[in-house]
Amino acid sequence: MIKVDLSGAESFWGEAGPDYEKCAAAHRTLTERSGPGAEFTGWLELPERIASGELDRILSAAARIRARGDVLIVVGIGGSYLGARAAYDLLGRKGDGVELIFAGTGLSAVAVRDAIERLGDRDFCINVVSKSGTTLEPAVGFRIFKELLIRKYGPAGAAERIFATTDARRGALKSAADAAGWECFVVPDDVGGRYSVLSAVGLLPLAAAGQDVKAMLAAAGAAFKALDERSSANPAWQYAAARQALYRSGKTIEILGCYEPRFRMMAEWWKQLYGESEGKNGLGIFPASVEFNADLHSMGQYIQDGPRHLMETVVSFGESGAAYAIPADEADGDGLNYLAGHDLNEISAIARAAVKEAHIQGGVPNLAVEVSAMDEAGFAELVCFFEFACALSGYMQGVNPFDQPGVEAYKKLMFKGLEALK
Amino acid sequence: MIKVDLSGAESFWGEAGPDYEKCAAAHRTLTERSGPGAEFTGWLELPERIASGELDRILSAAARIRARGDVLIVVGIGGSYLGARAAYDLLGRKGDGVELIFAGTGLSAVAVRDAIERLGDRDFCINVVSKSGTTLEPAVGFRIFKELLIRKYGPAGAAERIFATTDARRGALKSAADAAGWECFVVPDDVGGRYSVLSAVGLLPLAAAGQDVKAMLAAAGAAFKALDERSSANPAWQYAAARQALYRSGKTIEILGCYEPRFRMMAEWWKQLYGESEGKNGLGIFPASVEFNADLHSMGQYIQDGPRHLMETVVSFGESGAAYAIPADEADGDGLNYLAGHDLNEISAIARAAVKEAHIQGGVPNLAVEVSAMDEAGFAELVCFFEFACALSGYMQGVNPFDQPGVEAYKKLMFKGLEALK
Repeated sequence: MIKVDLSGAESFWGEAGPDYEKCAAAHRTLTERSGPGAEFTGWLELPERIASGELDRILSAAARIRARGDVLIVVGIGGSYLGARAAYDLLGRKGDGVELIFAGTGLSAVAVRDAIERLGDRDFCINVVSKSGTTLEPAVGFRIFKELLIRKYGPAGAAERIFATTDARRGALKSAADAAGWECFVVPDDVGGRYSVLSAVGLLPLAAAGQDVKAMLAAAGAAFKALDERSSANPAWQYAAARQALYRSGKTIEILGCYEPRFRMMAEWWKQLYGESEGKNGLGIFPASVEFNADLHSMGQYIQDGPRHLMETVVSFGESGAAYAIPADEADGDGLNYLAGHDLNEISAIARAAVKEAHIQGGVPNLAVEVSAMDEAGFAELVCFFEFACALSGYMQGVNPFDQPGVEAYKKLMFKGLEALK
Repeated sequence: MIKVDLSGAESFWGEAGPDYEKCAAAHRTLTERSGPGAEFTGWLELPERIASGELDRILSAAARIRARGDVLIVVGIGGSYLGARAAYDLLGRKGDGVELIFAGTGLSAVAVRDAIERLGDRDFCINVVSKSGTTLEPAVGFRIFKELLIRKYGPAGAAERIFATTDARRGALKSAADAAGWECFVVPDDVGGRYSVLSAVGLLPLAAAGQDVKAMLAAAGAAFKALDERSSANPAWQYAAARQALYRSGKTIEILGCYEPRFRMMAEWWKQLYGESEGKNGLGIFPASVEFNADLHSMGQYIQDGPRHLMETVVSFGESGAAYAIPADEADGDGLNYLAGHDLNEISAIARAAVKEAHIQGGVPNLAVEVSAMDEAGFAELVCFFEFACALSGYMQGVNPFDQPGVEAYKKLMFKGLEALK
């Protein structure tokens, strides 16, 4: 399971430190479903619910998607794509899995052209993911790729290649799917988008890409059980209480870092989770991210010597699943032959320890999150850990961690602007 | 050229507003080379210097790289890769240009495995970019890909496929290159890494990828001339003075946003430029980035309703170079048929205006940066604009915008840790 190490933060939060009593209260609020947003806490039960529910149908649809082509176009925005995108980038396409191309996240004609070029003339299916079906960006993306699909396979052929993940009963997409005969999967009513990756929202595309979603669900079920521990030994308590303590002491920005470039979109998933859950009522830690080592040579200067309003959370994987020995070089121009034969993982561990020490010396508290392995189980554990800690942290901060009223502001103005075209 | 629109920020900075007198002083400090770091202001002359200097040799080497294979492995970290990576992601591979694979930015064995898999058995060359040749990450990356190159082509064949961009006279990489007979290009002594994209550092890989680097240099030359205007009509003055005014009024985080997903790495280049130039002595605006529309559904909530310590700079391109008409849909399940036939660029412009209005209403000042087109000239203009404004902004903030002393901290501790392996 996840391990959290707070030793790099202890010197920063003053005498009060992490408020585990408040954390215990937040834990009760969450599990007793007595707080604001309690109607959106179904994510705690997703592992069991999916395993005894939609899982077989997800696996069967994924097998059909793989049999029917090389590519799955995943149409969705925000929580409807970030979890799948994060796992896909982190763990990749496996076995006979299809390639995932994500679309419907914007209105860029360049991005549409790029996606169509990348698709080429390969056979494909579409998974459209939208609770309502009327969010502009994915609706437009769906129109575009559905038209290409119908042009290629005809209306009947296309109907067999469209999979809709949407509301169980109502909404524009559900109605369209029922009318056209597309197979449907459920965006549960009691799970918000940013907490939905372990529902069909994430699992269908990931299963199509060949990832072991059964292993994900098994690890997630075990993780949520472990995370229910009511003590300061709970890694979610440690993380939630530590970041709130640091926030109180003036650390207004949290940088999530990882030494694996494949983690980039996982950090974007995390930004939505924390930014959308806590960024409200004028409150909330600003979530940012860096890719180490690369960004030590871009953001490193600021982290080391800029204003001391930063905290840093670094995720590392016990087992990366790869190894590479540094080659010897006869000329030894760079003077690094003493590293020859050593594995990159060993060198990286030394670098990671040095960066942690340097940043702490520079005045940046460090929260270390260790995941056992960079695989499906590790991904699921990290998801459960961050979700559970986010709910605790949001309640500790005094907000509803499950709503996102601010997202409506631009939508309203945009649809008002679009009315001129009616 | 670049246009800056400050109308979305004017209500936020109080009576004082942008301090153009201070900006004028910073301009003089920069161009008279009278401030700290004056010895690193050679980037102002790069367009002329390269055009009358290394350009022919860059174009000739790029042609050989294209003739010798499909791939160029670019080994470098920080300023040695971010500019090329930004332009490559923004504008892509063109004509008969090679694919660029960036390496040497970290110590991840997974990333090395991924790069080697992506390379496959295709013919390739290497461009190693390092002033000293002893920075650990690119030195290790260079060892790895040089070994693969020698294994494939033998020592003599490999020597014809390695291109070193490094110090003109000294250093480990320069010595190794001279000994082995690799063609060399220059990292100028008076240009820091983050200001180096318009030298051979960026131009060689971009020319190999088929981009029109002559057009870049021509546009850059014209841009630097235009940016020398001493008045508040200068877009670099507007941007520098506005962000400093907002910083003084408590806006400690600047989010760079763009509606083109291809802009992602350009934002990373910008983060290094501003973070490394200004993040020192406990000062500096924290540089962050978002990809719109996607992140309106992840960071949008925080931007709209979180703490009001944010400013937002949004880059848009007058001409994206692509168009796509929204398809009609007989069933009209999403109710968007009134948009059918309208081009995505038109819809996107309406969305952009709505987002700007929503964020201003939410209390986030907006700085708008408009570039004529998403092409080589537009890239170069944006680079010159951001570089020039960064120098002004840094001097206005009272720091040396051209050093990065904090980057040494982790390096020292890392090499100390590595000594145990000696």
